[in-house]
Amino acid sequence: MRVLILGGDGYLGWPTAMSFAAAGHEVLAVDNYSRRRIAQETCSEALVNNPNLVDRARAFGASSNHRIEVAIGDCCDFRFLEGIFQRFEPEVAIHYAEQPSGPYSMMGFEEARFTLNNNLNTTFNLIQAVISHAPECHIIKLGTMGEYGTPNIDIEEGWIEIEHKGRKDRFLYPRQASTLYHTTKVLDTDLLWFYVRTYGLAVTDLMQGPVYGLSTDEVGSDPRLMPNFHYDDIFGTVVNRFLVQAVAGVPLTVYGKGGQTRGYLNIRDTLQCVQLAAAQPAAAGELRIFNQFTERLSVNEIAEKVRTAGKRMGLVVRIEAIPNPRKEAEEHYYNPVHSGLLELGLQPHYMAEEVVAAMLEEVISHKDAIDTGKIMPRVSWSG
Amino acid sequence: MRVLILGGDGYLGWPTAMSFAAAGHEVLAVDNYSRRRIAQETCSEALVNNPNLVDRARAFGASSNHRIEVAIGDCCDFRFLEGIFQRFEPEVAIHYAEQPSGPYSMMGFEEARFTLNNNLNTTFNLIQAVISHAPECHIIKLGTMGEYGTPNIDIEEGWIEIEHKGRKDRFLYPRQASTLYHTTKVLDTDLLWFYVRTYGLAVTDLMQGPVYGLSTDEVGSDPRLMPNFHYDDIFGTVVNRFLVQAVAGVPLTVYGKGGQTRGYLNIRDTLQCVQLAAAQPAAAGELRIFNQFTERLSVNEIAEKVRTAGKRMGLVVRIEAIPNPRKEAEEHYYNPVHSGLLELGLQPHYMAEEVVAAMLEEVISHKDAIDTGKIMPRVSWSG
Repeated sequence: MRVLILGGDGYLGWPTAMSFAAAGHEVLAVDNYSRRRIAQETCSEALVNNPNLVDRARAFGASSNHRIEVAIGDCCDFRFLEGIFQRFEPEVAIHYAEQPSGPYSMMGFEEARFTLNNNLNTTFNLIQAVISHAPECHIIKLGTMGEYGTPNIDIEEGWIEIEHKGRKDRFLYPRQASTLYHTTKVLDTDLLWFYVRTYGLAVTDLMQGPVYGLSTDEVGSDPRLMPNFHYDDIFGTVVNRFLVQAVAGVPLTVYGKGGQTRGYLNIRDTLQCVQLAAAQPAAAGELRIFNQFTERLSVNEIAEKVRTAGKRMGLVVRIEAIPNPRKEAEEHYYNPVHSGLLELGLQPHYMAEEVVAAMLEEVISHKDAIDTGKIMPRVSWSG
Repeated sequence: MRVLILGGDGYLGWPTAMSFAAAGHEVLAVDNYSRRRIAQETCSEALVNNPNLVDRARAFGASSNHRIEVAIGDCCDFRFLEGIFQRFEPEVAIHYAEQPSGPYSMMGFEEARFTLNNNLNTTFNLIQAVISHAPECHIIKLGTMGEYGTPNIDIEEGWIEIEHKGRKDRFLYPRQASTLYHTTKVLDTDLLWFYVRTYGLAVTDLMQGPVYGLSTDEVGSDPRLMPNFHYDDIFGTVVNRFLVQAVAGVPLTVYGKGGQTRGYLNIRDTLQCVQLAAAQPAAAGELRIFNQFTERLSVNEIAEKVRTAGKRMGLVVRIEAIPNPRKEAEEHYYNPVHSGLLELGLQPHYMAEEVVAAMLEEVISHKDAIDTGKIMPRVSWSG
C-alpha cells in the first residue's frame, strides 16, 4: 500500500512511519517541524534530542533496510500537499499533522490563532486533495477522546441514536472539549462529516485517548529511532510528567483532586489500531469512528502506579496535589464504549507494573537530561 | 447602548444599523465589502444598485437625523477589529460578518477556503476582542436554521436533553448542514460554546431561517436605503428568485420535488428579534440559542403563494421543476420549536398574500433591471 503520513515527525507519526515501512508498505512521511519550533520557543524540548526526520529515516533505512521517504513542508500550503498527492498517489493518508498541545492553544491570541488555522486548514486541504486527486484514498484521521469531554451519559463510538418525543434519528455523538486544541478536533470532525456525506469520501476518525510509551518494536536499541518524549507542561502527558518527577525525586504533581479519568493506551496499541484501520478501510461515504484506548484510569490511579513501580526500584515517590491550571471536572462519570477496534483485532497492552517499570528504567537512563524547571504548569485557564 | 454591527453593509446588517440608530442607540457599522466583491466576480449583482455603506449612512443621516458611524475594514484582521473595540467600547456586538452564500462555498477550492477561513476567523477575532477589551459585551451571533439540517426528530432551540442508558445530560442539539457555508456556522457554534463556558462570555446565537422582504420602517420611500435584493443563484433566496421569475414572466424554478421545508421570516421580524435579544441580553457564561423564524413553508407552498398573488395582479405565473443542483432531502420531516423569541416579545408578520403582492409590486418597479441570465443554478453539488 502507498501510505502517506502527515505529521510524520511527531510522537506518533514517526513510529507509525516505521511500523508501516516494516510491514512492507511504501511510506512517505511529511512534516513542517512546527512541533519542534514550538518546543524551542516555549522551552519544552524533548528529553532526548531526536534527530530530524530525514536523519531518522536514514538511520532507520541503514539498520532495517526499510525505506521511508520524507518531504518537509506545510500541509496548510495546498500547492505543496497537492504536489505530494500527484506524485505519490496515496492509497491511505494518515493525518497527524495538527498542533497537538492543549495548554499551547490556551497561552494567548497568537497561539490560539495558529492552532485554529493550522489544524482546520490542514484537514481542509487534505479533504480537498483527496477530492481532487485521490477520491478512493482512505483518510485515517487522528481525533481525540477529548472531543467528547466528560458527559454524564455513556460515550458511544462517535455516533448516537437519539429517541426524542417518539421519533428517532442517528447523529454524531455530541462533543464539548476542554481546550481550544481539543475543540479544533471537534471542528475537524464536523468538517470531515460534511465532506464524507457530500462527496462520498472514506474516512476513519480515531478518537484517541492519551498515549504512553517510549519505545516500539522498530526502535530496538537505537536511541535515534525513539519516539519524542516530552515531559513539560506544553507537550507532556500526565504519564510522562509523573515518570520524570519520580526519577528526578520531586513530587508527582496531581492537578486538583486527581479524579480526572481518561482512556489511555500504549503506543504499541496506537500502531496496531492504525494498521488495523488501514487494512480494513472505511467504505466510500462512511465516517467510521472508533474510540481508541484500552483502559480507563484516573490521574490518582496513574500516580499510584508510578509510586508502586518506583518503590520496587528503590525510588522514593511522593504525590502532591497542586491547584488545577485547567478548567475541567476533577470528579466525574466516565464510561466510554471502546469495542470497535477490539472487533477489528486489537490485542491490548495494559499499563502493568512491569510496563511502568520499563518506562522508568528508560527515563533513568536519560536522568541527566531532566530539567525540572520544565515541569510545572505555566499556562492556566481555570480562571 | 453602543451597538457594533459587523457586516453592516449586508442584506440584514444595513437595516439592522438603521433600526438601532432610529431607536436612539449609538451605532458603528463595519464591513469589508466582500459580498459586493463576490457579487461582481460571479455576476450576481443585486437588482437595485445600492450605494456604498458610507453613502447610505449619509443619506440616512440626512433624512432621519440619526447617525450611523461607518468603518470599512476586514474583521479577519485582528488589529483592525481590536482598534474598533478600543475606540468604540461596544456594549453589544451583532455579528453578521460572514460569507453568506451556500452555493458560493460549493463552487471550488478557493471559494470554499475563503468561506471557511473568513467565517471562522471573524468569529474567532470577535471572541478574542471581547475577551481582551470588552468582557461584558453581549455578542449576538447570526447562525442559521441550516445548521440543524433536516433531522427525523423535532428540532429544539439549540439544546437537547438526551436520556441514554438510564442517565441524562444536556448537549448542544446535533448539527449537520448541507453546504460548507452552513457547516462554517456549525463550527462557529462549537467555537462560541467553548469560549462561553471557558471565559464566561454572554452570547445569543440566532438560528435564523431564510429571510424575505424588500423594505423596513426606516427605508421609507428612499430607494438608497433599501436592503440589498439578490435574486441570483449565489446570493438569492428561493423567495426572491420566485418573485423575479413571476415578474419576468419565466417559470418559477422548483429544485426537484419542492418538498424542502424551512422556517421563514420577514425582514421586519429579523429586526425585532435582534432588538429583543439586545434589550434582554444573555447572562455571562450563557450561550442562549433561539430558532429565529415565524412560519414553516415548503418550496412548493412558496411557489403557490407567488402564483396566487401574481395572478390577482394579472401576472401569468408558471411553475416548473428542474433537477436539484443541491444535495438535500426533497421530502422530509421538519418540526422545529420556535417559542423563545415569541416569549421575548416577537410580534410575527406572516407571508400573507398582501405581503407577497407588495414584494411583487416593488420588483415590478425595477422590472427593467432584471437579468434573467442570473437566475438558473450555475453551481451543483448533487453529484
